[in-house]
Amino acid sequence: MTKIRPRIPSGFMELLPQDQIVFNKMLEVIKKTYELFGFMPIETPAVEFTEILLTKSGGETEKQIWGIQKGDGSRELSLHFDLTVPLARYVAQRHEELTFPFRRYQMQKVWRGERNQKGRFREFYQCDIDVIGSTNVLIDAEIPSVIFEAFKNLGFPNIMIRINNRKILNGFLVYLNCSDKSKDILRIVDKIDKQGKEKVAEELEGLGITGDSVTKILDFIEIKGNNEEVINKLRSLKVPLPLFAEGLAELETVAKAIEVFGVPRENFKLDLSIARGLDYYTGTVYETLLKDYPEIGSVCSGGRFDDLAEYYTDKKLPGVGISIGLTRLFFKLKEAGLIKSKEGVPSKVLVANMGKEFVNENIMAATELRKNGINAEVYFESEKISKQFKYADRLGIPFVVIIGEVEARKKAVTLKSMDTGEQNIMGIDDVIKLIQK
Amino acid sequence: MTKIRPRIPSGFMELLPQDQIVFNKMLEVIKKTYELFGFMPIETPAVEFTEILLTKSGGETEKQIWGIQKGDGSRELSLHFDLTVPLARYVAQRHEELTFPFRRYQMQKVWRGERNQKGRFREFYQCDIDVIGSTNVLIDAEIPSVIFEAFKNLGFPNIMIRINNRKILNGFLVYLNCSDKSKDILRIVDKIDKQGKEKVAEELEGLGITGDSVTKILDFIEIKGNNEEVINKLRSLKVPLPLFAEGLAELETVAKAIEVFGVPRENFKLDLSIARGLDYYTGTVYETLLKDYPEIGSVCSGGRFDDLAEYYTDKKLPGVGISIGLTRLFFKLKEAGLIKSKEGVPSKVLVANMGKEFVNENIMAATELRKNGINAEVYFESEKISKQFKYADRLGIPFVVIIGEVEARKKAVTLKSMDTGEQNIMGIDDVIKLIQK
Repeated sequence: MTKIRPRIPSGFMELLPQDQIVFNKMLEVIKKTYELFGFMPIETPAVEFTEILLTKSGGETEKQIWGIQKGDGSRELSLHFDLTVPLARYVAQRHEELTFPFRRYQMQKVWRGERNQKGRFREFYQCDIDVIGSTNVLIDAEIPSVIFEAFKNLGFPNIMIRINNRKILNGFLVYLNCSDKSKDILRIVDKIDKQGKEKVAEELEGLGITGDSVTKILDFIEIKGNNEEVINKLRSLKVPLPLFAEGLAELETVAKAIEVFGVPRENFKLDLSIARGLDYYTGTVYETLLKDYPEIGSVCSGGRFDDLAEYYTDKKLPGVGISIGLTRLFFKLKEAGLIKSKEGVPSKVLVANMGKEFVNENIMAATELRKNGINAEVYFESEKISKQFKYADRLGIPFVVIIGEVEARKKAVTLKSMDTGEQNIMGIDDVIKLIQK
Repeated sequence: MTKIRPRIPSGFMELLPQDQIVFNKMLEVIKKTYELFGFMPIETPAVEFTEILLTKSGGETEKQIWGIQKGDGSRELSLHFDLTVPLARYVAQRHEELTFPFRRYQMQKVWRGERNQKGRFREFYQCDIDVIGSTNVLIDAEIPSVIFEAFKNLGFPNIMIRINNRKILNGFLVYLNCSDKSKDILRIVDKIDKQGKEKVAEELEGLGITGDSVTKILDFIEIKGNNEEVINKLRSLKVPLPLFAEGLAELETVAKAIEVFGVPRENFKLDLSIARGLDYYTGTVYETLLKDYPEIGSVCSGGRFDDLAEYYTDKKLPGVGISIGLTRLFFKLKEAGLIKSKEGVPSKVLVANMGKEFVNENIMAATELRKNGINAEVYFESEKISKQFKYADRLGIPFVVIIGEVEARKKAVTLKSMDTGEQNIMGIDDVIKLIQK
């Protein structure tokens, strides 16, 4: 028979079991953190009506979207490319059945048809939270505490959450008479970390902004200092516009409340250069770096929006949320050598096979271990004990239980520690006690 | 602005948060059970090369498959329609990196483009386990103990696992000189529960099988009794064919070992009418019913196969596995009123809002609860306390913590039980102790 070469398309992450265990643990940690803050799960179909996915977005999204082709060639359905549009559709559709403010988390794969580049995935997990139906900026201050808690629990407490408020920059641009170009300016300004000041200045001038205004914009986004200093500098600009004043007041409230939420000072800062490319954010915006690995780039970002679901409902639904792109994060951490695959093991105990005559004892030993919550498996193949040890070793199973003639007669087992090589004969109850502690 | 009606395609299950919590708990219970038996997780892309998905299958599958349409109109990629074909591809591709016997679990959504009928889903979860790389029938006996444990942990211990061995029926058909029609016969025989004896007899005659053989086939699949009786009746047929003898020996071994694995007698039986439509099973086959709700149909099925990945590799990979179709199961349980949505709550505590001046106390109380592993959220909106109680009530949050002037002065909180309505003033430490027990 002609064989088909087994392979997967590029841009898809597929892991060996030992890495999958670590990945799944990270998913679990994020989930538990979200639940700790009272977020409730939803899950939406991977497939939505194409017209629903394309409302919000321009040609950019249309190129990225993966259509579903049925037998009849229609392209009525597509795979979702994020979890925000499905959330908007969900909330608009089920408005009457939900309780607001609606705190939801959603952790699913999304698909994008972009060209594959190293570290760019066409299928990846997003882990999102959003609070829908409130304009209260205290929630904007709570979100960083969820981010901090999540990364702390993932083993990366040393993060920097950079926070800005779009109203401040937008107000400032109105003040400079550049607000008609604000979308383009935000897009350019957002790249200052990657491209540097000069390139940004050049691009801003390319938009037809006067040299004086370009200088002011660059000075503005480079305002530095601790939270109080940044707030004071902004206040000293004396921009006479309500939008600016509103943004400044919000930013100040958020900065103060974040500490009450328990996020240490060294883990967040106000940073006026954060603008976030996506144009639907209207207030607070966030980006998060791992301070020890800034080269990984933003690991969690988001912001506040005025109206989530305007394309589907007249109900005004303001909200705020963030997203952790777990697939990319895992890939980057793995690349940096920070994923320890041996951390997760499937079984705690392998029950070895010393011959057919002990099979009942073996099965009963495994059953007893499982009854006590200990993951265990029985080796059923007829192989030399050395090969069985090798199996345990390769899978990272820390203990082997051996039942041969002596053990069967004594109604006991030999417990071998794969770590130390030590072997001791004991009752199964003692094995359970030893492993449980 | 013209609104687009928010809706999802038919054949997709989308839940409200309170049901999603229950669904996720079921996924978690199944996962923990699989891990208890030493199965390791893998996850494969939702998208595979179409040619890989179509190897095994005829035109039936081709109609069901959902193709991905990229901008260029190509249909090189498709959504997977089960987890067995991706497993075959995965094992063939990563053979050198895996350790055999390979015990893997995989719990993912799959997609089928079939016409939507009530209770038929076009997107649904499969929760699969397989052991690959072993012909040992003791594993065939272990699988029912995993099924039993999973359903027990899901709260449905009263199951009936029906077990057969395809070699017995196949051997019997060789003996009757009908083996050239065995595929069709198995397909017809598999429907005896749904269609009854007469209809099956009619269809068998339609295949050109003699009346005498039809009678023998029907008598055969209706062999009844306890395990020993079934085995003895089969033995008394004295079918002089190695295939038959082999199947009978396997079935006997499996039946005996299942009890050693701790599955009670009332939860499994040998049933010669179970043939399983899918033609790739070659040995033991399983089907599982909920005894109290037989109308739900099979909730878990599977079997043994000789060669998993023959389309992708020369390596012979025998194995055995089962699948729980969780989406359908959940839907059916919900329909039967067996899903209690109030079981899962997002937050254990709502910290109420008694005015802006207590916001710091509120946030700190919530943080303290979370530090002790208690899911908690703060109510930030300015609403009457009665509306806040209503919010807690609608979400099923069992406790409300209230901090007003008196509490703030005393550095205490009032704890209200939503269940009893009782309110008591106490320290936050006492709230933690009370909720933790």
